Amino acid sequence: MARCEQLAGVSAMAGGIERTYLTPEHAAHNALAAGWMAEAGLATWQDAAGNQCGRLEGSIPGLPALLLASHLDTVPDAGKYDGILGVLIAIETAARLRTRAGELPFAIETVAFGDEEGTRFGATLLGSRALAGTWNPDWSELADRNGTGMEQAFRDFGLDPERIGEAARRPEDLAGYLEVHIEQGPYLEEAGRALAVVTSIAGARRFHLTVTGEARHAGGTPYEKRRDALIGASRAVLDIEAIARAEGAIATVGQFEAFPGAVNVVPGRAEFSLDLRARSDGLRDRVWGLILEAMQAFCSERKLGLAVREIHSAPTVPCAPRLMEAVRAGIRATGDAEPMELFSKAGHDAMAVAAVTEMAMLFVRCEDGISHAPEESVTVQDVAVALDAFEAAVLAAAGL
Amino acid sequence: MARCEQLAGVSAMAGGIERTYLTPEHAAHNALAAGWMAEAGLATWQDAAGNQCGRLEGSIPGLPALLLASHLDTVPDAGKYDGILGVLIAIETAARLRTRAGELPFAIETVAFGDEEGTRFGATLLGSRALAGTWNPDWSELADRNGTGMEQAFRDFGLDPERIGEAARRPEDLAGYLEVHIEQGPYLEEAGRALAVVTSIAGARRFHLTVTGEARHAGGTPYEKRRDALIGASRAVLDIEAIARAEGAIATVGQFEAFPGAVNVVPGRAEFSLDLRARSDGLRDRVWGLILEAMQAFCSERKLGLAVREIHSAPTVPCAPRLMEAVRAGIRATGDAEPMELFSKAGHDAMAVAAVTEMAMLFVRCEDGISHAPEESVTVQDVAVALDAFEAAVLAAAGL
Repeated sequence: MARCEQLAGVSAMAGGIERTYLTPEHAAHNALAAGWMAEAGLATWQDAAGNQCGRLEGSIPGLPALLLASHLDTVPDAGKYDGILGVLIAIETAARLRTRAGELPFAIETVAFGDEEGTRFGATLLGSRALAGTWNPDWSELADRNGTGMEQAFRDFGLDPERIGEAARRPEDLAGYLEVHIEQGPYLEEAGRALAVVTSIAGARRFHLTVTGEARHAGGTPYEKRRDALIGASRAVLDIEAIARAEGAIATVGQFEAFPGAVNVVPGRAEFSLDLRARSDGLRDRVWGLILEAMQAFCSERKLGLAVREIHSAPTVPCAPRLMEAVRAGIRATGDAEPMELFSKAGHDAMAVAAVTEMAMLFVRCEDGISHAPEESVTVQDVAVALDAFEAAVLAAAGL
Repeated sequence: MARCEQLAGVSAMAGGIERTYLTPEHAAHNALAAGWMAEAGLATWQDAAGNQCGRLEGSIPGLPALLLASHLDTVPDAGKYDGILGVLIAIETAARLRTRAGELPFAIETVAFGDEEGTRFGATLLGSRALAGTWNPDWSELADRNGTGMEQAFRDFGLDPERIGEAARRPEDLAGYLEVHIEQGPYLEEAGRALAVVTSIAGARRFHLTVTGEARHAGGTPYEKRRDALIGASRAVLDIEAIARAEGAIATVGQFEAFPGAVNVVPGRAEFSLDLRARSDGLRDRVWGLILEAMQAFCSERKLGLAVREIHSAPTVPCAPRLMEAVRAGIRATGDAEPMELFSKAGHDAMAVAAVTEMAMLFVRCEDGISHAPEESVTVQDVAVALDAFEAAVLAAAGL
């Protein structure tokens, strides 16, 4: 918990927490994580994507590694636990298992991913996708809000963008992946439980949407002459919510801005994001079709343009039965005989890593389901029991 | 027209025009205007608010001045004529009248105001309100998007914020105010006319609105737990349009942004502007009441907070009959026997100056009513006839 506070002090934002990919804050949180990993007796290195790694050899050197990981980057004005708790529990678990390393049929590697949230470049899971070997070469075209391109950001951070492929791990070098994460939802709290085993991670689709009209003077332009892009985008926000609620999906418009952005100019352009999730990929895609149809109909009625760019798409990823069973055994070891099961509505590094090795996750209760906000909160008691469960899960995975 | 092009080259924006108050672009356009005023034979100075001024003495030195003025600041991604044309016609009119200065019962002063649009600090008409002596001391609290405060901006520009009062003119030193401006509406073009005399300027009220909810994770937060500020603000945008259209007012939301602005976070806050105008102040205020009621009802239903800050309020200002008659005489001198009358739906420097002296305005046709956009366009022919009419109007005001 003290380390969570220490990381909270590494921020680009005054009065809040914000750490994004390939920034000075990224370098600072890597340095802290490297120190803690070394303290835990791990050999440490930073990989070609800027992920901070540590390794504890098993019974013989060079065995495939069980990865224990999560991320240290954040959304803007973030909480102290999303991702962070998973990294710190991974490191502490490795520290606890140090004396039993000689019995382990795998090595243990801890990873602090440098980008999961996608705050800086829009595309998400950059750290874990680099590790999984699914880095998209098109990402080199992405730029942040200030116009700094991905490749420049790599160089500014001291990494060579040409060598990103070296971060990719081979399946034969891995023995699986386990991640602890706060639930970011209210279900554990409602059930009065501290921990759950995750069954699958719902895949999200993300879009960048642009409505175009015509920028005109606010006073002199009668309604008949207006093609107000903000009207089209605002209507889209309401349609998106209504359709997703009716269909049982979860849709969020998190970014939204009107341009040129002067108090006395009818907006000629409005840009917004859409994040779409559902219990199945089929439902999610059907809801997207309904949303697109509604937006196109309204924009056409108002003589507005609509441009759609898909910036992220991930299928729903099941957790591996073998590792789910290890997590279940870990939870049982803490006295909870019938571990609760949840599917994850939020995306996690585990879903990217699933492309290269089997994975499972352990969820920890958080207060009121709040995440991605300064009010994010966990109890010391829950963290203690999660640490015990995670250690037991690793031993279960080792057959010990 | 060549000077319009030259000013278009002074911009803070790549690929577009943007000049705002107390910036390097402001200094640059003042330098150009000062050069042209000097070339026209005027004595030149910059006043305590950063307005660029020039003076041609009348029949005897020291007479009260007839002000010929408009502004050189712009909205973001602006056109080349809004304000600019008025300043350049004022300077050219002074140049033409130089040989007849000995007959004039007043001095002529040209003014290029440094802020009319309010792009940088939100509050508008800063230049003309300084001249009119109605500078609001609260404006010293305003800051731009980068957090630079008004007083710092004054100092950065080389002005002393403590001396802003020195820009105020005394009524007894003024003989009236005339301004040329593009119509920024479609009515002259629809009527097939080049010029109109303005009868009054509709006063706008402007508000800064903040909807507050709770920032939460997009995936893990079910709809029942959401208090999405963007939903409240989007609904407000649609309600504002529906109410204003139904009531015959003109309402514009020009600025709109959601925070924290991450693709996977439910917005906890949304901020937007409202610009509200109507043919009468009574109608305008009644429409504001209806809008506020609708916003409060929806926000209350969604458990959202709503904060309202009025950032600008101006009563409808009538033009002075004496000066309207001079403008009418000017238009008649160009061969239009029955000058068209229009009331201005857009605000202008003239409405601020009306606090200290009588004013009237001449409108020039623009293409398709487009303004505050790069497509803003006037014809050389219309500008030529406007210049003739404005010169004749000044002579008519002089009784010559």
